[in-house]
Amino acid sequence: MNWIDEGALYSQISLFLREDLGRGDITTQSIIARNTRARARFVAGENIIVAGLEAAEEVFLTLDSQQQLEAFVSDGEAVEAGKVIARMIGFADVLISAERVALNLLQRLSGIATLTNNYVKAVEGTGAQITDTRATTPGLRPLERYAVELGGGYNSRFGLDDGVVVTSHHISILGSVSSAVRSAKEKLGYLHKVAVQVSSESDVREAIEAGADVLVIDDLSAEEFGRLTSIARERSNAIAIECGGNITVANVREYAEAGAQLIRVEALTNAAPAANISFKVQPF
Amino acid sequence: MNWIDEGALYSQISLFLREDLGRGDITTQSIIARNTRARARFVAGENIIVAGLEAAEEVFLTLDSQQQLEAFVSDGEAVEAGKVIARMIGFADVLISAERVALNLLQRLSGIATLTNNYVKAVEGTGAQITDTRATTPGLRPLERYAVELGGGYNSRFGLDDGVVVTSHHISILGSVSSAVRSAKEKLGYLHKVAVQVSSESDVREAIEAGADVLVIDDLSAEEFGRLTSIARERSNAIAIECGGNITVANVREYAEAGAQLIRVEALTNAAPAANISFKVQPF
Amino acid sequence: MNWIDEGALYSQISLFLREDLGRGDITTQSIIARNTRARARFVAGENIIVAGLEAAEEVFLTLDSQQQLEAFVSDGEAVEAGKVIARMIGFADVLISAERVALNLLQRLSGIATLTNNYVKAVEGTGAQITDTRATTPGLRPLERYAVELGGGYNSRFGLDDGVVVTSHHISILGSVSSAVRSAKEKLGYLHKVAVQVSSESDVREAIEAGADVLVIDDLSAEEFGRLTSIARERSNAIAIECGGNITVANVREYAEAGAQLIRVEALTNAAPAANISFKVQPF
Amino acid sequence: MNWIDEGALYSQISLFLREDLGRGDITTQSIIARNTRARARFVAGENIIVAGLEAAEEVFLTLDSQQQLEAFVSDGEAVEAGKVIARMIGFADVLISAERVALNLLQRLSGIATLTNNYVKAVEGTGAQITDTRATTPGLRPLERYAVELGGGYNSRFGLDDGVVVTSHHISILGSVSSAVRSAKEKLGYLHKVAVQVSSESDVREAIEAGADVLVIDDLSAEEFGRLTSIARERSNAIAIECGGNITVANVREYAEAGAQLIRVEALTNAAPAANISFKVQPF
Amino acid sequence: MNWIDEGALYSQISLFLREDLGRGDITTQSIIARNTRARARFVAGENIIVAGLEAAEEVFLTLDSQQQLEAFVSDGEAVEAGKVIARMIGFADVLISAERVALNLLQRLSGIATLTNNYVKAVEGTGAQITDTRATTPGLRPLERYAVELGGGYNSRFGLDDGVVVTSHHISILGSVSSAVRSAKEKLGYLHKVAVQVSSESDVREAIEAGADVLVIDDLSAEEFGRLTSIARERSNAIAIECGGNITVANVREYAEAGAQLIRVEALTNAAPAANISFKVQPF
Amino acid sequence: MNWIDEGALYSQISLFLREDLGRGDITTQSIIARNTRARARFVAGENIIVAGLEAAEEVFLTLDSQQQLEAFVSDGEAVEAGKVIARMIGFADVLISAERVALNLLQRLSGIATLTNNYVKAVEGTGAQITDTRATTPGLRPLERYAVELGGGYNSRFGLDDGVVVTSHHISILGSVSSAVRSAKEKLGYLHKVAVQVSSESDVREAIEAGADVLVIDDLSAEEFGRLTSIARERSNAIAIECGGNITVANVREYAEAGAQLIRVEALTNAAPAANISFKVQPF
Repeated sequence: MNWIDEGALYSQISLFLREDLGRGDITTQSIIARNTRARARFVAGENIIVAGLEAAEEVFLTLDSQQQLEAFVSDGEAVEAGKVIARMIGFADVLISAERVALNLLQRLSGIATLTNNYVKAVEGTGAQITDTRATTPGLRPLERYAVELGGGYNSRFGLDDGVVVTSHHISILGSVSSAVRSAKEKLGYLHKVAVQVSSESDVREAIEAGADVLVIDDLSAEEFGRLTSIARERSNAIAIECGGNITVANVREYAEAGAQLIRVEALTNAAPAANISFKVQPF
Repeated sequence: MNWIDEGALYSQISLFLREDLGRGDITTQSIIARNTRARARFVAGENIIVAGLEAAEEVFLTLDSQQQLEAFVSDGEAVEAGKVIARMIGFADVLISAERVALNLLQRLSGIATLTNNYVKAVEGTGAQITDTRATTPGLRPLERYAVELGGGYNSRFGLDDGVVVTSHHISILGSVSSAVRSAKEKLGYLHKVAVQVSSESDVREAIEAGADVLVIDDLSAEEFGRLTSIARERSNAIAIECGGNITVANVREYAEAGAQLIRVEALTNAAPAANISFKVQPF
Repeated sequence: MNWIDEGALYSQISLFLREDLGRGDITTQSIIARNTRARARFVAGENIIVAGLEAAEEVFLTLDSQQQLEAFVSDGEAVEAGKVIARMIGFADVLISAERVALNLLQRLSGIATLTNNYVKAVEGTGAQITDTRATTPGLRPLERYAVELGGGYNSRFGLDDGVVVTSHHISILGSVSSAVRSAKEKLGYLHKVAVQVSSESDVREAIEAGADVLVIDDLSAEEFGRLTSIARERSNAIAIECGGNITVANVREYAEAGAQLIRVEALTNAAPAANISFKVQPF
Repeated sequence: MNWIDEGALYSQISLFLREDLGRGDITTQSIIARNTRARARFVAGENIIVAGLEAAEEVFLTLDSQQQLEAFVSDGEAVEAGKVIARMIGFADVLISAERVALNLLQRLSGIATLTNNYVKAVEGTGAQITDTRATTPGLRPLERYAVELGGGYNSRFGLDDGVVVTSHHISILGSVSSAVRSAKEKLGYLHKVAVQVSSESDVREAIEAGADVLVIDDLSAEEFGRLTSIARERSNAIAIECGGNITVANVREYAEAGAQLIRVEALTNAAPAANISFKVQPF
Repeated sequence: MNWIDEGALYSQISLFLREDLGRGDITTQSIIARNTRARARFVAGENIIVAGLEAAEEVFLTLDSQQQLEAFVSDGEAVEAGKVIARMIGFADVLISAERVALNLLQRLSGIATLTNNYVKAVEGTGAQITDTRATTPGLRPLERYAVELGGGYNSRFGLDDGVVVTSHHISILGSVSSAVRSAKEKLGYLHKVAVQVSSESDVREAIEAGADVLVIDDLSAEEFGRLTSIARERSNAIAIECGGNITVANVREYAEAGAQLIRVEALTNAAPAANISFKVQPF
Repeated sequence: MNWIDEGALYSQISLFLREDLGRGDITTQSIIARNTRARARFVAGENIIVAGLEAAEEVFLTLDSQQQLEAFVSDGEAVEAGKVIARMIGFADVLISAERVALNLLQRLSGIATLTNNYVKAVEGTGAQITDTRATTPGLRPLERYAVELGGGYNSRFGLDDGVVVTSHHISILGSVSSAVRSAKEKLGYLHKVAVQVSSESDVREAIEAGADVLVIDDLSAEEFGRLTSIARERSNAIAIECGGNITVANVREYAEAGAQLIRVEALTNAAPAANISFKVQPF
């Protein structure tokens, strides 16, 4: 994460804590004396790729800057079930009050990294890249993109402003692939490559003739995807080929072998279950 | 959702759009003329409980107030695969630029409502209530609680400030169940009920003697849970009994039949895959 | 004050300074050289309970972090007229420019703590608790609740979200005490106690039958209040009894002796005159 | 109030409501159906000058724009005990949830206007003006200045940035009245008048010689104040004379008759008890 | 301007008004009765391209939504000295209080459009495009880019995040043109074109071999610029050629004729004097 | 700059960086390794008065607090072309990413200080003061006023709230100079001097009779300005005389010699070209 994202993260964590604490953790405030020292541990409950340790640490520090976290692994490392990921020393009330927000981030991001890694391992050796999409949780895109990277995936465009992708929506309104591609190239071609979504043989031809830099071929069977890829390759070696839609861990390798250089997977960020990670607080 | 949540939602949607649009949808701006009228449809790709239609509509309206959404179902209704959920009339550029944020909300919330409903159906007739937890997506708790309700679940406390739950962390620091419960009752008993996490026969006895209002029995097999429940019931008919931890759609009914009145399921909000809902834009 | 309130206090103090300084203290900037060292003293002008010293210190620190305050008493202590409460060493311009905001907080909070303490002393030995209400200065509730505590009073619910009180407004709309209490217990009884405002013998009976946890008996003479209290006590020993409305330092003990366990006093926060505390700046 | 203050008021009221409602009025939400129509009345419980009706109305409108308030008096009017000030028609839940914030503003501002008016009436016919000070409630200065005006008082400088007052603090640091006044005139005299705090005969002479435009004579008996005023008048007819400190309704006329043109009263905004105004909700 | 920029503009104008009005236009408030109707006119004092009329109108509307502006020209039109650009009908106090902020925007933006147009006319017929740079006024970039477009210029990248330009700084750190270009292409080439700053014959060769899409040739005489351009053209027809640095209205055509396709001019946004436009308020 | 302005500056710089960096400096992030040490220099490209070095330093520090700037001159000093103004040591990526925002501030402010100084030198020895106006860049007024001071100019009122100037707009609405001046004096005369814009002999007489403190005589030739000044001086020695409108470096001395004590120049802040200052980054 760069400065921009880090700055945003700090203010977000403050909001996340407010969302959970509201006017304060009344249970803990009523029964635990302030400044009671305590320790705690994060333990992996299954095999995972860890992601979000720094964000989790920041949650505790935001509540009280005197908590210390000692991590035994780094973001991006694979750990096995039972492994102690990190331990903390601090105040009992702070550790207890911040737990849930920290876990919500750590479990969610580790879940994304772990699922991403499953896709990455499935295409190992084919040269294909697994990329994320804009199907992220609203408000958490920078963190989720970071988790995808930790899992071995690649980030596609951050948003609608930093990449040009002509989709079937645009084509449907404009009436043809070639007019859409030509228009985008003319206006934005000085700074940007132009990608275009195609779904038939004629689309592929039109796109290449109009000067598209990337072909996006979605929602086809691996076989049909391979057929269009061959047609494209006959015409251009330079053009990049990307696929997406209905990709699963089970079938992703077929697309890679059929010629996909980039494989977009929405599930990385919209269907990854939270990783099983627990947190235990104990007296010092 | 009440006034507080609605106000928060409006400002959040604005932030979500900024997250996705950044400095603007450069592709659409470069190839689609402003004020080009278009129409679009949301279609269910699988059997789901719909949740988030109003939030999705608000996304489009935030971008441009002239878009019109006609919903064919209401939030909370079950629809079958293939059903057109809603249709829109508006401007092509607005429909295309707002699509992703709207879908990210609608798919995620419908996913939660659908998963919740699976749990609810699994305990039908037992009288047990499926409740959500604080394991929500940071920043989206009000929306996710709303989706749980639409799926037939119940909301537990909003945050650490509006309910008193003495957990194993507190007990570990204080040294005994009874001292923790007594302390909480003394400070907060005037306005609040006191719930306490217990995991053994002696815990159950201590909690009831100390005057706990709710017993929270987590991470046990249904059989062992039932045993503790019986012990509790011998001592008090008034106390409420709740369970949680490792509950699945497959085993949830066992817990309900073993005496759980409230069943907390973290997965409702941290492991629900996005529902399959598509969006298609066409010329007017 | 907890983390939530402290964080809010810091940003509020910044706003309070802006309210008073606007574009800057033009008088001081024009005649006092920057970095001129000076000292100052806060002196009590009457017998008071001190409240708000930390907030006052924070005002100076917000303007310039190099000011030092040495307090001779702590928040909550009683001091006699003439007592030097604290002295400061710092820069003349900062001490002068921040004075008014610091005094506005310190005088107001000490006024509340002092008035509260008068009520508390009046019921000494009766076991009754003096509690604050929601009749606080808009924007200053956390600070004013803190001042009430320092004066020996108790805090009632923070706001409408963390306690259930069925008032005469609700009863007037619903038509009966019992339907209002039953409805509140059913929806909120899992986490919350239910308090209800009653004003007649039949109200008392209805409330107890419907399962209310707290009776709120307002705006009656001490004698009449005592009569209703007796009726309630005949039926339940567990129910808590609270009074409010027209309570003065002169008559508060009568209510305590008539059986009030909790006595709500709006005047604590909406009629306490600012305490007489002065501030003098001198050359170093 | 001008545009600046009105804009600020709207956003403040939103914050005030959040302070009181937090995550929502759980009692009302649980027992009153949405859209239940109801009516309500504000009634004066003592003789007062009304102030803050528009602000109170805005509280209800902020929660829900469909509430209607019909005022029977305007801000600034005197009403007798028992008078219905305004009535409202709207939704029961909105009327109940917004009541406390509306009353907190209306009672406080009416209290200030009423107290101010007592001072104003006490100096009637003398030509002296009662003015407010910067001893306002942090965060509420614009509203409190407005209430002072409604009570017949005058507003002194808004803050440290829009008026030049050389105080005893400045003089203590600079060492002499004349150096302080001369310095202020040189830097700020092009746009501003210069006021200076004096406490002795020699101070008065120095100030007039140095060119001060206003003399501020504080904390003296009316007799002693009169003596200094006469000395000043011998030297200048143009200079304005102001007093402050320990002024009460009982003694204020003495100062006016001793020659005070402007009389600063801190109590107007830091010791006015909330006015007695009640609010009753009834079914429609 | 798109939605993003428009939203930002509205909140900026509010800040601009606060900057100028602070606590209010005390002169106008003290001498002009509210709701006094008046009219006003904007008149060009020299030949200009008008830019910023909508922004200026928004300034008046932000202060009070009842002001009406009737424009006689549109943004982007050329007008001669003496021409009435627009007239307004509204309230005297609003017209007077908002004047300065409205003029500050209108004069500045028209100044930029007018200067841009001088450059554009100077290269007429050569096919070269005049483009803006990131040397804009901090905080006003969207408005200034809009003014450049109105003057006939082109917008280059909005910021550091939406275009890849390898500058002499990068090359100095990395040690060679080719390693910098290759690295950028590898990481960003999928979505973006890569531009690179070159200053010698060998730079040009390296850049083209490394696959650069745009050559940026700055700070050379037109003759020397032309020499490098010819060298580049011998190797590639596809590469775009841009120049910048020390370009004036007097010499810009030489660069265009020497082969510059894009000419970056910092002066458009950092040296354009405010256009002479006056505003006169009169009674209705 | 005082505390108020400094606080505002810090948050502004953060916004300025976001304006330029958006989602990050993608070029630099893709080709420069983090923590690569580098050095850089600011060099004057022409004779200038330096202004804005602290603001420029703050830009780098905001991005990363480990950058060090060593300044060879202070804000307000005159330097000759070729002079190294400051050098920096830090990280290559930070130096490169922050360059543009830092330069935009430093060049603009130095341009204003330099132009101001040209006016100041032109009136040397006459006793006249060159003052700024409210024709500043929206959002940058505090910084631009600071630059004017560094160039030897004087600051006039900050905004409409801290000085009373009756302009021709007010007079046009009210119908006469004297009614406008009298009204302003009555309402604001206790704290403020009253300035009034006059344009004829009769205006001058009316203004002085009504008690104006400052005459503002705009848009006249120096000769005609001198004539009105003489008429004013015959009537009052105390009144201050100010001129403005169409003042250039070439003609400013004529006005000073004709009796102007204060000369307002809009061009200082709305027509100063950015100063020529360059920035070079090199390996460490």
